Amino acid sequence: MILTRRRFFSTTLTTGSTLVAAPALIRGLSSPAEAKAPIVGKAAPSFYRFKVGEFEVTALHDGEFARPLDAGFVRNAPLADVQKTLADNFLPTDKLMLTFTALLVNTGSKLVLIDTGFNDNGGPTNGRVVAGMKAAGVDPSMVDVVLFSHFHGDHLQGARSKAGQLVYPNAEIMVPAPEWDFWMDEAKMAAAPDGMKGAFAGVHRVLKPNAADVKRFKWGDEVVTGITAVEAAGHTPGHTAFAIVSGNAKMMYVADITNTPVLFATNPEWKVMFDMDPDRAVATRKRILDMAATDKLQLSFYHASFPATGFIARAGAGYRFVPAQWS
Amino acid sequence: MILTRRRFFSTTLTTGSTLVAAPALIRGLSSPAEAKAPIVGKAAPSFYRFKVGEFEVTALHDGEFARPLDAGFVRNAPLADVQKTLADNFLPTDKLMLTFTALLVNTGSKLVLIDTGFNDNGGPTNGRVVAGMKAAGVDPSMVDVVLFSHFHGDHLQGARSKAGQLVYPNAEIMVPAPEWDFWMDEAKMAAAPDGMKGAFAGVHRVLKPNAADVKRFKWGDEVVTGITAVEAAGHTPGHTAFAIVSGNAKMMYVADITNTPVLFATNPEWKVMFDMDPDRAVATRKRILDMAATDKLQLSFYHASFPATGFIARAGAGYRFVPAQWS
Repeated sequence: MILTRRRFFSTTLTTGSTLVAAPALIRGLSSPAEAKAPIVGKAAPSFYRFKVGEFEVTALHDGEFARPLDAGFVRNAPLADVQKTLADNFLPTDKLMLTFTALLVNTGSKLVLIDTGFNDNGGPTNGRVVAGMKAAGVDPSMVDVVLFSHFHGDHLQGARSKAGQLVYPNAEIMVPAPEWDFWMDEAKMAAAPDGMKGAFAGVHRVLKPNAADVKRFKWGDEVVTGITAVEAAGHTPGHTAFAIVSGNAKMMYVADITNTPVLFATNPEWKVMFDMDPDRAVATRKRILDMAATDKLQLSFYHASFPATGFIARAGAGYRFVPAQWS
Repeated sequence: MILTRRRFFSTTLTTGSTLVAAPALIRGLSSPAEAKAPIVGKAAPSFYRFKVGEFEVTALHDGEFARPLDAGFVRNAPLADVQKTLADNFLPTDKLMLTFTALLVNTGSKLVLIDTGFNDNGGPTNGRVVAGMKAAGVDPSMVDVVLFSHFHGDHLQGARSKAGQLVYPNAEIMVPAPEWDFWMDEAKMAAAPDGMKGAFAGVHRVLKPNAADVKRFKWGDEVVTGITAVEAAGHTPGHTAFAIVSGNAKMMYVADITNTPVLFATNPEWKVMFDMDPDRAVATRKRILDMAATDKLQLSFYHASFPATGFIARAGAGYRFVPAQWS
């Protein structure tokens, strides 16, 4: 029997019970037993390891979070347009499934974690960076440097457990100086609208107890040999990308120059509600995406689908994120 | 310092030694020690678990293989066009990095492995299905059914080790009847050109010792409750896709209706050298890709980038494979 398209659906979408008796050549299936392997019901700790020159880079999936998709999510586009872009990419349109991927870089002399996810400060579908790291053979105590792109909670909170312990006890914490200056400014905190006070409090919770040990760097600094801070402001005042260079190989961790690239690489002018300086965020996004497209530079995003690393192609008036081939 | 695009490359592409002294705010980095974590130098066993209704589906990465890319690889397109499509997708143009992903389906009553990779019959970068399965918590002895899409070595050889043992000792082997009829035909084997005799011998090596136990199914048969064989001939005479249906959820494992979809979904008329009946392979490819695009049906390919599952969008004169978001 050759199935046409319509025939496939008319047959397989009926329940299997009438069909299972049909195949004359199949024996022994009339009384299906339980499979020997039980349904596991959960995903594995996810890590993905790749090389950048001599460096070994490991993408660590912190998890995902379904957030409501309302008219305010993109400030300057109708909800219907946002939903159409999601549908064009085979994603749900009633919510945004946001994913989180931190990056562990072993330069051979330093083991550097860039952004930290939630640890146990998020929901049940987050906080898997440490599990992924352990699955990759790395104990949190081995991390030499924790490097932050910016201080939003999904990037920062994972550095300190809910109980108050540093999750990477032997790591030096390094932060963008302009980010530190903004969030540690007591006057700015006092003047912040109520909706932002929680964000300030979260930053203080993580960074204040060890404030004297936190290293602040400037844009342009090579913060660890081979890793240079790149100005990428707009999303937050100190939002920073990191150029990772080993020999002739290079890539860039671009953190939140887009929220999901499905929406914001496709539509680089769109302003997500989280961008604190939306105009500057758009300019930063376009500058870095344009550079990546021109130079075929590999990027890692924080909010792209795991393993969240790939390339940027020009597409229409915007860009398209092309995941790197799994290797 | 704010890095412009050109400044980024002029600075980071010089060696780090001159820059590392610059950051006044960074201390303690002047004598980089060995990272506490050694460079691992290899990838992890890779599996990716997702749900289709009540079924639990696990993609298992067998590995990859770099094959030469010569003028004969695509029969009806100039090598330069093939290379352009690869470059447009940020892939090497001097070789084809072909990847292999088998699919494990737990229906709750049967644990079914669809295609088997190489096991120890391939090269050093292949044969990782069992390792991935074990990482996913499944021992090969737990597999109830091994289901083949067709008998090419990269799909079939992994069912039997080089030493001759069945890798899934408790599994019933199920094969497409037209595929069996072709490859088990002694007259066809005798008449085969020299270049194909090895393929026949490989099939006989794997399937002959247990030939009496091999179950043959027809297109349209529901081979296991919820898994139906779908005619997809052309690549080989019995090449078969599998519709996987649980409740209202469905997907299709499409095996080799394309070699890598990067090339052959983009250019569905292209005829890869492996397609035994190229015209029929093109017709099958277009029929199934068109159905998937129209119905937004999730597909799993054998030669897409791991985890090799996603959707089909129409793009120009062809289609584009859109990986499912990692969840």
